[in-house]
Amino acid sequence: MYAVIMAGGKGSRFWPKSRERMPKHLLDIISEKTIIQETVGRIKHLIPAENIFIVTGASHAGELIRQLPEIPKDNILIEPVGRNTAPCIGLAAVHIRGKDPDAVMAVLPSDHLIANEARFLDLLKIAAEMAGKGDYLLTIGIEPTTPETGYGYIERGEKIASIKDEDIYTVRSIREKPDLETANALLEQGGFFWNSGMFVWKVSAILGAIEKWLPEIYDGLSTIETALGTSQEKKVIEEVYQTICSISIDYGVMEKADNALVVSGNFGWNDIGSWDALWDVLDKDEQGNVVKGPFIGIDAENSLIHSPRKLVALVGVEDLLVVETDDALLICKRGKSQKVKNAVEKLAEQKQTQYL
Amino acid sequence: MYAVIMAGGKGSRFWPKSRERMPKHLLDIISEKTIIQETVGRIKHLIPAENIFIVTGASHAGELIRQLPEIPKDNILIEPVGRNTAPCIGLAAVHIRGKDPDAVMAVLPSDHLIANEARFLDLLKIAAEMAGKGDYLLTIGIEPTTPETGYGYIERGEKIASIKDEDIYTVRSIREKPDLETANALLEQGGFFWNSGMFVWKVSAILGAIEKWLPEIYDGLSTIETALGTSQEKKVIEEVYQTICSISIDYGVMEKADNALVVSGNFGWNDIGSWDALWDVLDKDEQGNVVKGPFIGIDAENSLIHSPRKLVALVGVEDLLVVETDDALLICKRGKSQKVKNAVEKLAEQKQTQYL
Repeated sequence: MYAVIMAGGKGSRFWPKSRERMPKHLLDIISEKTIIQETVGRIKHLIPAENIFIVTGASHAGELIRQLPEIPKDNILIEPVGRNTAPCIGLAAVHIRGKDPDAVMAVLPSDHLIANEARFLDLLKIAAEMAGKGDYLLTIGIEPTTPETGYGYIERGEKIASIKDEDIYTVRSIREKPDLETANALLEQGGFFWNSGMFVWKVSAILGAIEKWLPEIYDGLSTIETALGTSQEKKVIEEVYQTICSISIDYGVMEKADNALVVSGNFGWNDIGSWDALWDVLDKDEQGNVVKGPFIGIDAENSLIHSPRKLVALVGVEDLLVVETDDALLICKRGKSQKVKNAVEKLAEQKQTQYL
Repeated sequence: MYAVIMAGGKGSRFWPKSRERMPKHLLDIISEKTIIQETVGRIKHLIPAENIFIVTGASHAGELIRQLPEIPKDNILIEPVGRNTAPCIGLAAVHIRGKDPDAVMAVLPSDHLIANEARFLDLLKIAAEMAGKGDYLLTIGIEPTTPETGYGYIERGEKIASIKDEDIYTVRSIREKPDLETANALLEQGGFFWNSGMFVWKVSAILGAIEKWLPEIYDGLSTIETALGTSQEKKVIEEVYQTICSISIDYGVMEKADNALVVSGNFGWNDIGSWDALWDVLDKDEQGNVVKGPFIGIDAENSLIHSPRKLVALVGVEDLLVVETDDALLICKRGKSQKVKNAVEKLAEQKQTQYL
């Protein structure tokens, strides 16, 4: 079994900690490890390091290699430019096909939180077992607990199998992020899962599906495949990526395919899309504070304090998100962190590029 | 005319900017200049630099000399240990008596805000004119505008003179900081001024009063006076300060003296005793923010942001006091800054002396 970790994210939602050169998955904001170190560490229980591939951009590769010394350097696949998930997954798939045409591969985002590692690995094993049985495109759904408008939804169809008490369904439809009314209706109707962006399939299944539904992308991938391991590899990848379509695997393949399946789990998944989400998921002290770094609180409650080095003293405040870096300090009301991007936009308008 | 600036303050109320080695008067928190630079700059219009004496502690003298290159080094009087205002004023008075026994001296705190410099200087001239006429102890009162509990009060007696439309009164009583009920009663009754801690008198008048009301302190001062200008000066001052009484000029002299006078003014005086007071007195932008340093605000209102170097981004917050230094960050709700000292006490308990 192989794993492909998609580490192409940029994201200004964790500013000032995240920057153009330091996206979310490279940050140590949920534990002492960085998020991608957590992601890799989790699946290493199931998949050896030499079978773990990571797809990233050139500007982040150096830091990523530094953070993950156990991953062979050849397994760090560099996209010259981000073209959304379909080319990213395809690029990894042709690499893996060269090693093992019968391989099963799991595709995992680099920057999600998974609280219950054991349950997650069990589900991954079940998905891999099912994927190994045929020409299936398995997606991992999450049992929804709230009418989230920040996630896509997967509608299950009929049950076609059950492995170790986990039911596996066909996919009836895949929905983009809904509005709140729609999200409420989906939850009421039942049979919908959150789309986690995690997939498991045989390399042959996904490349077959890309060939069928995205033939131009498949042509580009074939061109790359013939150059792999040659002196032309890097140049060819750069040429192909100049013109390859930017499209997501959901929109380009999963929404059209008739061999998509879904298996769902409840393993404490969260895509931690903001500082607010981080406060939600992390452990709190008796005052409801999530603290990283030296801290002193006087009547201070329900706040997130991320300041690894500098002492932070909060006096008489509540519901704040405080994030301190070497050159910038964010103080945001809890519940308002979607507006952090407005601050970043303002800095961009003012051409204060040192802060971006 | 001479001036004596009392710069003995420590104060944790401006933590983390103020520290044991960097008290409030050495901070640039009200303008580009430090507070003592403002204080000296103001009176230099009236009194030449060689007639300005500053009394301070040994640990602050170096920084003070650095900030005030125009003051002769011999005019920086160092107390080995702080003994409240009576010995401090007495020490300066014996120095000045050695230069000019008939001098009039103004005693000024180092760390107060005075918005209307011209009015203040006019009042100082009037006080000096009155002080020159006899054996008077003039204190400068401030017309009270609110029932402040953080200031002492001076009750005026009968009017005994009027100079350039300013009435000068005898002092009927001097009151310590009152509770709110008492403060309200004083304002309702009328005839009370805030005690600014500023005095004007002849050197002979104050030394005479100290001799009368605080004879032991006067003995110590006399011992020092005989050693001034000799090689023994520093040693004698240290010996005298070992045992000299710690007492305020208000309690030790002004409350007892029958030759105290008061002249009052309204020149935008504030003792800026906290970060809250600083927000109150400084100019605000359209969002009600007082900003020093690089700043970006998204829905951010009525806050003080003091961060000379580091970018501060406030998102969706109001009524905050934000103070950033090289090693510590304070975020305090407006109206709660009296609790900043609790944070400092907690740091002291934890023996985190690097932050004190």
